[in-house]
Amino acid sequence: MIIIMQTQATPEQIQAVEDEIQRIGLRPFINPGVERKVIAVLGALDARKADLVEHFHSFPGVERVDLISHLWKLASREYHPADTVVDVAGVKIGGNRIAIAAGPCSVESEAQTLEVAHRVKEAGAHMLRGGAFKPRTSPYAFQGLGEEGLKILAKAREETGLPVVTEVMDTHDVNLVARYADVLQIGTRNMQNYPLLKRVGAIKHPVLLKRGLGCKLRDLLMSAEYIIAEGNHRVILCERGITTFEDSTRHTTDINAVPVLKHWTHLPVIVDPSHATGDSKYVGAVSKAAVAAGADGLLVEVHNDPQHALSDGPQSLRPEEFKTLMEQIARIAQAIGRAM
Amino acid sequence: MIIIMQTQATPEQIQAVEDEIQRIGLRPFINPGVERKVIAVLGALDARKADLVEHFHSFPGVERVDLISHLWKLASREYHPADTVVDVAGVKIGGNRIAIAAGPCSVESEAQTLEVAHRVKEAGAHMLRGGAFKPRTSPYAFQGLGEEGLKILAKAREETGLPVVTEVMDTHDVNLVARYADVLQIGTRNMQNYPLLKRVGAIKHPVLLKRGLGCKLRDLLMSAEYIIAEGNHRVILCERGITTFEDSTRHTTDINAVPVLKHWTHLPVIVDPSHATGDSKYVGAVSKAAVAAGADGLLVEVHNDPQHALSDGPQSLRPEEFKTLMEQIARIAQAIGRAM
Amino acid sequence: MIIIMQTQATPEQIQAVEDEIQRIGLRPFINPGVERKVIAVLGALDARKADLVEHFHSFPGVERVDLISHLWKLASREYHPADTVVDVAGVKIGGNRIAIAAGPCSVESEAQTLEVAHRVKEAGAHMLRGGAFKPRTSPYAFQGLGEEGLKILAKAREETGLPVVTEVMDTHDVNLVARYADVLQIGTRNMQNYPLLKRVGAIKHPVLLKRGLGCKLRDLLMSAEYIIAEGNHRVILCERGITTFEDSTRHTTDINAVPVLKHWTHLPVIVDPSHATGDSKYVGAVSKAAVAAGADGLLVEVHNDPQHALSDGPQSLRPEEFKTLMEQIARIAQAIGRAM
Amino acid sequence: MIIIMQTQATPEQIQAVEDEIQRIGLRPFINPGVERKVIAVLGALDARKADLVEHFHSFPGVERVDLISHLWKLASREYHPADTVVDVAGVKIGGNRIAIAAGPCSVESEAQTLEVAHRVKEAGAHMLRGGAFKPRTSPYAFQGLGEEGLKILAKAREETGLPVVTEVMDTHDVNLVARYADVLQIGTRNMQNYPLLKRVGAIKHPVLLKRGLGCKLRDLLMSAEYIIAEGNHRVILCERGITTFEDSTRHTTDINAVPVLKHWTHLPVIVDPSHATGDSKYVGAVSKAAVAAGADGLLVEVHNDPQHALSDGPQSLRPEEFKTLMEQIARIAQAIGRAM
Repeated sequence: MIIIMQTQATPEQIQAVEDEIQRIGLRPFINPGVERKVIAVLGALDARKADLVEHFHSFPGVERVDLISHLWKLASREYHPADTVVDVAGVKIGGNRIAIAAGPCSVESEAQTLEVAHRVKEAGAHMLRGGAFKPRTSPYAFQGLGEEGLKILAKAREETGLPVVTEVMDTHDVNLVARYADVLQIGTRNMQNYPLLKRVGAIKHPVLLKRGLGCKLRDLLMSAEYIIAEGNHRVILCERGITTFEDSTRHTTDINAVPVLKHWTHLPVIVDPSHATGDSKYVGAVSKAAVAAGADGLLVEVHNDPQHALSDGPQSLRPEEFKTLMEQIARIAQAIGRAM
Repeated sequence: MIIIMQTQATPEQIQAVEDEIQRIGLRPFINPGVERKVIAVLGALDARKADLVEHFHSFPGVERVDLISHLWKLASREYHPADTVVDVAGVKIGGNRIAIAAGPCSVESEAQTLEVAHRVKEAGAHMLRGGAFKPRTSPYAFQGLGEEGLKILAKAREETGLPVVTEVMDTHDVNLVARYADVLQIGTRNMQNYPLLKRVGAIKHPVLLKRGLGCKLRDLLMSAEYIIAEGNHRVILCERGITTFEDSTRHTTDINAVPVLKHWTHLPVIVDPSHATGDSKYVGAVSKAAVAAGADGLLVEVHNDPQHALSDGPQSLRPEEFKTLMEQIARIAQAIGRAM
Repeated sequence: MIIIMQTQATPEQIQAVEDEIQRIGLRPFINPGVERKVIAVLGALDARKADLVEHFHSFPGVERVDLISHLWKLASREYHPADTVVDVAGVKIGGNRIAIAAGPCSVESEAQTLEVAHRVKEAGAHMLRGGAFKPRTSPYAFQGLGEEGLKILAKAREETGLPVVTEVMDTHDVNLVARYADVLQIGTRNMQNYPLLKRVGAIKHPVLLKRGLGCKLRDLLMSAEYIIAEGNHRVILCERGITTFEDSTRHTTDINAVPVLKHWTHLPVIVDPSHATGDSKYVGAVSKAAVAAGADGLLVEVHNDPQHALSDGPQSLRPEEFKTLMEQIARIAQAIGRAM
Repeated sequence: MIIIMQTQATPEQIQAVEDEIQRIGLRPFINPGVERKVIAVLGALDARKADLVEHFHSFPGVERVDLISHLWKLASREYHPADTVVDVAGVKIGGNRIAIAAGPCSVESEAQTLEVAHRVKEAGAHMLRGGAFKPRTSPYAFQGLGEEGLKILAKAREETGLPVVTEVMDTHDVNLVARYADVLQIGTRNMQNYPLLKRVGAIKHPVLLKRGLGCKLRDLLMSAEYIIAEGNHRVILCERGITTFEDSTRHTTDINAVPVLKHWTHLPVIVDPSHATGDSKYVGAVSKAAVAAGADGLLVEVHNDPQHALSDGPQSLRPEEFKTLMEQIARIAQAIGRAM
């Protein structure tokens, strides 16, 4: 940690910072700068770092506190250099193979879910996605079938053998969802719902953590850290578009996020092109881009009848479109030395 | 609702949209455009609106669906033209008087909280704010005192008479927090935590709903709608800064939000200048701006010893700075025909 | 064009809008809505559209004016359905082949430029990029060699046969730069420098138009329209990253922009991964993503000695890194049915 | 300047950085950190700073280069602590009085301009604003009257005594505009048009520099530095809204910018509430907020007949609305100890 003093900081203010550094058991080291004083803080900061940045920032005469190292630890490559491979009922996420989860936005009925499940299975998908608890912007929109939806997903798994990814929105429902699901999804609106993160950190299921719409990648990693710190190392990160000024698509896919996350963390990184564009005509292009950029997988919305979907119809691929996309993705994977 | 077809839409595609409109009990009305077809949808859409936009957007040949009216209803001025005034133990929020809630970011100890409470009371604050459950980006940062903190807040209320505003982060804790608090705060990270919104919608306490960092004002109003739709009309909206590319302050205060919200909704609107700037040097300027722009109140962080605050020290005012600010705010209020 | 009236609009206000529509030679058509009036404007709006939206928005009682169609015409696929292929001294941009322009950020010396030019040529690049006039954030940073730099670029073209892409920043310099360059680049900071757009619209050279950092895709197309409207149809669009709240990379590559632009316009679309990430470690991933998403080419910074580059060293590839990237790009191109 | 090495940096990489620091005449100072090496660079960096950050960032093993001090110098309060007061034909901008420039977006005709000029003069405005050269997103929109418009503005000044603020868009027109105008405005789209900044830096007129839509405050100050570095110290900064994800207003007024700029620079800071909101209903609230936050003035669009304005009608106040606003602003000014 480095503390940069204001150019007008008084000797007393500098002394006060030095004293405080020593008081808390660390060592100050003053750089011989001319224009302004820069104080390096030596010693083991560890978990106190997050609080100490704010602490010293509050001292009179301090211009800025620079942490130098990142605030996450368990999620970092420095701590765990090799790629983490998350095993979901035999499907490996984060290794050499690209893993594709596909399915409807919402579980609407048994017939619809089973049909879509069979179609995505035939096309080569590795996991089934589908929502039973749906976070909807409007209280008047379809909110999901709840446990009924979970049962349908379990039946689809039974029939197709595809592991199931589904969202949990409330601490209260974690055990319930975990009884049916193979992967618990934390949605974009709950990326910083810390009680929920702690709760899924305390169970054994893999967690698919979606980036919040207005959240930096460093915040995404801090949220992953919450889960890992509770003992659950099986975290899959998901870029799903961020909010920007651009309004031609629902969100802006931050494709830079893929190599940045792969550089910073050992956790697998997947992309959700359906939410990141909000438009089925663009899902193919962004899916291919994500895999080419190094993503470990995709989360794609597929619906047998998008026109009558109860949610996210405009961004859902038809099964035949998904099949074509899978073939294209396989070729991209091969071009970069990976497999499906 | 208006459905705008693509210029290349076929007569069959247009017919399919018309048929669907009739099938669901509404009436299509085709505008005699030359370049492209525009279909108005007549009849009572009501609560189905949110789903119908997506529904029709999924039809082949459809370029775009324009809702025309807003998706919120109970929160809108069209539904309830007069200003809503929320009464918090006698403090009126949303009327002619400006209401100021002040206090420490976190409840750290009884001594600290009581001292700050007395100081802000003396300076003229109307409510005490303070966090017992703290949403922190890092799992290693101070997480709040929990129920112990709530008890301290209740004691501060007893001593000063100031009603208490404090955050609740989890559905599980709503009853607990409601036992001690006068206003339940939904923090920025939980603005779209729908189970939590529904839960606080089902109790009688006023709710202070903070805007999410990456959320549009229309989404803020939809979240308010969730609470009101459950039966709780006592919702106070709070602008607290959004994420933008500008990095000289922690967030960007969206001052436009004040008049826009006052135009769209009858609910009271307050501003949190402490989080919106993240820097105590800028809190005064933004507080004055917020009141001048028409905000109904402020949420200000005050700490007796910011250097040793366990959270948000850099953005906390000292009690004497807060006192000066209160005097300035009173003059601004008077200049615009309001009172403190 | 559709004019949406406020719910409280009076009959007189509605009449005033109708009268104005007729006064300017168009026909009003009132939709039989219940909740609020919606007036369709019929007749040929043509080039007046841009002004008319604002015009009617100013009328009392008007809530919003929706243009329905886009404001650009010459740049749109509706006007010109087939892809435009821009021929730059034999290099085709916008056809089946991926075109790669590579070279140093700045022309620093003859030796440096010639060496880089030969190296990128050997690696398979199709064009040489390099800046003689440099827009730098700081007035104290290296500003480019000016005409001397243009002469060096011309010499590099002579030696390697690579056509030259270089930036022009001022109307005053257009003729000068055009004497030496094959493609005139309009930089991100000048995307809305309309006198400059008109000036390059009046010459015969192809123009590479970079998206402004804070500009929507619709604004990019309006800027292209400025150039085309002056008679120059040879416009190449370039996504080069936008400003967002994410700060782990210099800018955020809007990968969605590739399929959106290909959907909206017939003009070729390329991506600049060097500026869009600002970090050479991420250039490879984003280059592959761009080609996989359907970009017609790339603009890549390559420097023989990035450590001693006078500008943009951190984002420049070394020639050997560029060579490896070219091989990877060729495989991606093949995977999607294109060639280099 | 501080150079932060990667944790895995080798001794050779660290040595190479040290050698380079010495080679260019500065002194390296290695902090005794444990986790990673941090090298302070001692000596006079001066104007080389901008280039050196990139230079060292390109070295292998370097994680990040932190400049510590700002890149601007002439614009900074450290260089010039006292407020700069720009005198425009007797109107002082940056002192205790709030200066208001008002007038139509575009000069449309002599009659319109003279009427608006008289009306804003009567209401107490200090300067007349109006555009003769108009940067319009669409090439088909009204582009301004050019020199004819400048002559009309000069006549309005003659009749009312109000100094004239008007935009210049091209280096070619600087002398022409300067013959008629009292203040040269650099518009938002040209904030980083460096040839234009240098050109207006070389004349004697005050310059009103608007912030670019996607530009950080530090970039705004660097653009001001371009002008001052050429010898023209009379620069007025203008916040006019930035691009964000929020779409209920045309742009987002960054009210934080006012105190941040006043903290960083001695230059006067004004706000343009008309462009920052794009909607006349919100102009009043944001004008009051700007003055309350400490702005030195406002730039307000006023039109005698907004419905028939050739540009920006929706955001223009009527003269009577402007008069009311001036009275409110005067009360706010008084409340904060300033005058009109």
